[in-house]
Amino acid sequence: MAAAFSCPTSYVTCSSNRDNHLHDQNMKSLSNIKINGASPRSAGKADMLSQKIGAATTSVASVTKNDSLTAEQIRQKIPTKKQLVDPFRQGLIIEGGVGYRQTVVVRSYEVGPDKTATLESILNLLQETALNHVWMSGLLSDGFGATHGMMRNNLIWVVSRMQVQVDQYPIWGEIVEIDTWVGASGKNGMRRDWLIRSQATGHILGRATSVWVMMNRQTRRLSKIPEEVRAEISPWHIEKHAIKEDVPEKIVKLDDKAKYINNDLKTIPDHILESHQLSEITLEYRRECGSSDIVQSLCHPDEDEILNNKAVNEDINDITIMNGFSLAAEIMKGSGLLGSFEKGPLRYTHLLQTKAEPKNEEIVRGRTAWKKKLPTILFST
Amino acid sequence: MAAAFSCPTSYVTCSSNRDNHLHDQNMKSLSNIKINGASPRSAGKADMLSQKIGAATTSVASVTKNDSLTAEQIRQKIPTKKQLVDPFRQGLIIEGGVGYRQTVVVRSYEVGPDKTATLESILNLLQETALNHVWMSGLLSDGFGATHGMMRNNLIWVVSRMQVQVDQYPIWGEIVEIDTWVGASGKNGMRRDWLIRSQATGHILGRATSVWVMMNRQTRRLSKIPEEVRAEISPWHIEKHAIKEDVPEKIVKLDDKAKYINNDLKTIPDHILESHQLSEITLEYRRECGSSDIVQSLCHPDEDEILNNKAVNEDINDITIMNGFSLAAEIMKGSGLLGSFEKGPLRYTHLLQTKAEPKNEEIVRGRTAWKKKLPTILFST
Repeated sequence: MAAAFSCPTSYVTCSSNRDNHLHDQNMKSLSNIKINGASPRSAGKADMLSQKIGAATTSVASVTKNDSLTAEQIRQKIPTKKQLVDPFRQGLIIEGGVGYRQTVVVRSYEVGPDKTATLESILNLLQETALNHVWMSGLLSDGFGATHGMMRNNLIWVVSRMQVQVDQYPIWGEIVEIDTWVGASGKNGMRRDWLIRSQATGHILGRATSVWVMMNRQTRRLSKIPEEVRAEISPWHIEKHAIKEDVPEKIVKLDDKAKYINNDLKTIPDHILESHQLSEITLEYRRECGSSDIVQSLCHPDEDEILNNKAVNEDINDITIMNGFSLAAEIMKGSGLLGSFEKGPLRYTHLLQTKAEPKNEEIVRGRTAWKKKLPTILFST
Repeated sequence: MAAAFSCPTSYVTCSSNRDNHLHDQNMKSLSNIKINGASPRSAGKADMLSQKIGAATTSVASVTKNDSLTAEQIRQKIPTKKQLVDPFRQGLIIEGGVGYRQTVVVRSYEVGPDKTATLESILNLLQETALNHVWMSGLLSDGFGATHGMMRNNLIWVVSRMQVQVDQYPIWGEIVEIDTWVGASGKNGMRRDWLIRSQATGHILGRATSVWVMMNRQTRRLSKIPEEVRAEISPWHIEKHAIKEDVPEKIVKLDDKAKYINNDLKTIPDHILESHQLSEITLEYRRECGSSDIVQSLCHPDEDEILNNKAVNEDINDITIMNGFSLAAEIMKGSGLLGSFEKGPLRYTHLLQTKAEPKNEEIVRGRTAWKKKLPTILFST
């Protein structure tokens, strides 16, 4: 759980990233990791809309017809034609032929000691389903999620915004269905959304939305979407939003007056991590970050938490704290839970920046919301 | 790749562990993480042998008959009876009813920039298949892999030895079959083995074996296997070894004369990580390690690497290095590959210890072997 907000590191690939690859350092940029490099879109073929959902297809993906298949191609079997079903990925094309649904079992190493999936695991599964959506489309090129048209234009996808809401964390062994689809975002962006559903209960456990733009792989400058790429992608667009929001919340830029400033990637105070779980995270990416960059994490609570902490600090023994609720009353309302819901989640603003001369440069701005944890069953080991 | 040998951290849960849970610190011991807490065994039912392999079973696991199922139980659906097939886990009971095979697709986030699975991902999949083996057995209790009998006796599994050989790393999108089974190891231990096979080529990609013993959850002392637990487990034992080895190699204990000494968990020099990949790792666990322990990593190369490095350091411009091969000759032999094979892999001895007064205590001893990397396709992002 301490890794909760440090999760964005997975996106920006800074020096403290645990997957500190030693290869081409340029590859370790904004576009190469996790959700990021993760094929954020889906590509369409001209005949795609004429295909019926649920129609049976061969379970073995059609691979390239070139006789000189490499050993990698034989082992990978990237489809060159649209697939409607993949029994190994447990994936299925839905939504009139343009959406994708994958059934996954929450694995033992994807959960924390309370048996619920970590946010990192959820983000991994979002990436995986996005990439498999493209995999099924038949337009996946040799790169990590780029279409054939993008490869010809030397373009890669980079994420500019990512928002995840988790109402309830999936638990170890739970079977979940993840739906994902894409749509337009302005003139040169693409939106990718996800819904995570418990198969046993039918409940929506989480929702996510993201915005992706294209970047030239060499110049690292953002690019318009070339027409040939638009032609690949746009047939897959649908107008449906996983998260309803009229205007995306603006994230203010923190400065050195932020309450918590750390020279690593953990910013949320331990006492919050112990008692709360992340219910929402929004990240706005501003700049690439390299493996040798020195980073600094800033974090500032919304007014609520400041008031609470002030009260706690002023008189830790005074049980009349927490916005006027007495602690005893809170406990009577069910382990402080009701009281917590009444107050709403704790909210924080975040900034990850490079520490550099002549000035620091922002990498990513963030907002998080934290709900009080429900009592959970710990592993009995 | 820099995380390659730091991988053992996943087992021993020291302070630099990225899943630094804030809950019960005691739970973060040797037995709670990765392979470790990971249900290292399989439990049998009396009627198990009478069941036929491949016989159809219901695809929905039979859950406990108790009417008052908790929300967790409804979502988890842990079977109370042996299952022969699990379509969601893509698992199947094999080997006369006592082994387990699971088909998995290597996911996008499980690979490094060369598109091959990381060792960490492989270890995760070994854990997952081991746990799912127990899951299918119908004897999985509420804990993280313990049988009902173990729960009654307050026992957990701890790993004492783990050995993994990787001949070829699975690649992104590759469908692999992982077989796992258990056997006896001495009087009070259990052996668990694995085979990893490429479905496309039928080749064995990797092999692993491990030894597990029981520990009292409260006292943290090793325990004999109680009769009721032996009765659960022993029907699942088979005599088959994934790795042929007459006598396990003894790992010497390093001291402060080791060539590399680090106050974190990375011990392999960067230039080796860049040019080589781990082909074998053996770990011997000696002691639990807590989240607040300060650790130190020691590493010492076998004689070969010392000779090579000495040559490189003495004259970096002299192309006649590497055990007498000239660099040009090496390149002609196929990117230095042939030369590398002729020399055999580089080998290292490792020690992870707590730094403490009055004396350091060893946590885990290790041996690794590193083969020169084959030329690989990097992501084009």
